[in-house]
Amino acid sequence: MRVCIIGGSGHASFVFRAMSADPTIEVVGIAPGSEGENTAKFMKEAEKRGQSPKYYDDYRVMLDELKPDIAAVNCHFGDHAKVNFEVLSRKIHLFGEKPLATTMEELAVLEKEYERAGVEVAAMLGLRYDPAFYTAWHAVQDGKIGEVRLLTAQKSYRLGSRPNFFKNRVSYGGTIPWVGSHAIDWVYWFAGEDFISVMAHHSAMHNRGLGTMEMTGLCHFEFTNEVFGSVNIDYLRPSTAESHGDDRVRAAGTKGVIEVRGGRVYLISADQPGTQELPLMQPPAFFAEFVKQVRGEGQCLVSAKDSFRVTEACLRARESADTGKMVYF
Amino acid sequence: MRVCIIGGSGHASFVFRAMSADPTIEVVGIAPGSEGENTAKFMKEAEKRGQSPKYYDDYRVMLDELKPDIAAVNCHFGDHAKVNFEVLSRKIHLFGEKPLATTMEELAVLEKEYERAGVEVAAMLGLRYDPAFYTAWHAVQDGKIGEVRLLTAQKSYRLGSRPNFFKNRVSYGGTIPWVGSHAIDWVYWFAGEDFISVMAHHSAMHNRGLGTMEMTGLCHFEFTNEVFGSVNIDYLRPSTAESHGDDRVRAAGTKGVIEVRGGRVYLISADQPGTQELPLMQPPAFFAEFVKQVRGEGQCLVSAKDSFRVTEACLRARESADTGKMVYF
Repeated sequence: MRVCIIGGSGHASFVFRAMSADPTIEVVGIAPGSEGENTAKFMKEAEKRGQSPKYYDDYRVMLDELKPDIAAVNCHFGDHAKVNFEVLSRKIHLFGEKPLATTMEELAVLEKEYERAGVEVAAMLGLRYDPAFYTAWHAVQDGKIGEVRLLTAQKSYRLGSRPNFFKNRVSYGGTIPWVGSHAIDWVYWFAGEDFISVMAHHSAMHNRGLGTMEMTGLCHFEFTNEVFGSVNIDYLRPSTAESHGDDRVRAAGTKGVIEVRGGRVYLISADQPGTQELPLMQPPAFFAEFVKQVRGEGQCLVSAKDSFRVTEACLRARESADTGKMVYF
Repeated sequence: MRVCIIGGSGHASFVFRAMSADPTIEVVGIAPGSEGENTAKFMKEAEKRGQSPKYYDDYRVMLDELKPDIAAVNCHFGDHAKVNFEVLSRKIHLFGEKPLATTMEELAVLEKEYERAGVEVAAMLGLRYDPAFYTAWHAVQDGKIGEVRLLTAQKSYRLGSRPNFFKNRVSYGGTIPWVGSHAIDWVYWFAGEDFISVMAHHSAMHNRGLGTMEMTGLCHFEFTNEVFGSVNIDYLRPSTAESHGDDRVRAAGTKGVIEVRGGRVYLISADQPGTQELPLMQPPAFFAEFVKQVRGEGQCLVSAKDSFRVTEACLRARESADTGKMVYF
């Protein structure tokens, strides 16, 4: 499977991590997707794996010349939509960093182009393939907590040092769509319901000179069937914390409660006394699953519909936070 | 200090728990506050402690005859405001189950009467005196996490069996004001900011025949200074869980993160690597502190202002959940 990587700012490393599971994956070309973007780390990674991708200054020329099966797009977030459009309009399968777009207008254009193109699309909501989240979601699917009723999810990061393009809303897109997208995806994915409305707030106070970058965000989602979910997001984890992130989800259902915290899965179920820690499942490689889907041999956990819907939810939440008003889907 | 207890439906046991810390506390009378209310458990508790309170059918007659210093009010929640008014209008100090009122109209009347009466008031937000919450709040006051920016709080209960008056909104008041009041108090208390707005949802689905009683609630608060807080509430903890409740608060600040979970306090601070578990402080008895305040010898942790403001926040959150609209303070 011939793959081009566009950009060096996100998680295209999913492509390399899938190579041992699927040796047909070949990175044939790499190009920046945003002005001044550095893709050197992916060139090095490819060479380390005995591959010789061609480097291009212009990703459009690369797509036209190499005609890859799949493009993995991960440039500056504000450029995702533009690049994704170029990929889809060439009927190339898209494995795209989330959010797929950073404005509602671009997202609408992109969805239309997707329908026309007849290709596969997945946003890099790769934490669905994290062992703990993967295990917890399967337990919910197995009915361990009954019907899901109430959800909370958390993304808490160390601030560390951030690239310059994070300082500007136009190139960065905002903390709710960037950091928050995973947690917004979890509440949606675990709920198994559709979005109705969102009320959100965010703040760029105390951001240590990072321009418009928000340090905190809080989103409150109403789903169909009177299911509700909240998402709290922050860059406030101090550098002294033992890990970069503190990712969590908690789902309370009619039969019990399941929780992911610290990479572990805790279940309280009406079936069994006390709290059980579930053994972690070993998920397949995300991009290998997407390649299978491209071959027509199955479906990865992140559908095109999910990819677009979660991107939309991120943007509607950001709109709510920007305007101070509740936003309906 | 002569105390009358009105009602048998809430946490007037705070009075008895304070007796070893303050032997002047004497329960001189007990009466129901709502029709058909059973106060036998408090009569027994008093007798066990060698006290002989007089039982009255009518709490107004009791207040007029016994003229206590303090009335501890804990009847059916929908009757709190009516009884509290009778207490305040007699210039008796009020130690009242939260919420102090279950409608905004009653709350306004009550606040006016409080200003006229010149007595002390505290709502039974007794979890401020729980060792873990007490310890965590003091750590925040000591600057361990810098300025508080983002908060989440949780109340998760076993459903168990609930008295009949829970089945009716008028007598029960709603799950956000009843169960949620503590968590709403925590986000307010830890934030050290004032409320600006709230968006909330709640659902009575799957409530196993409990009438209008809500099983879940989710509240999203905006505070002054771009501080935000969410509160998730549920009765979904299965009977197999190892404890009745799963109370939590998490506060992320400019210098670190503090969290109460499972009765323990976890701190990540820029001052020290990794997560520290803080040794629990031993808080004084809540009602003993209130008695001191009545004597003019200090202040308990729950001020009259806090008591009214948290009650207001509960009612505004419930209004938001009932109407599906954001509500401003």
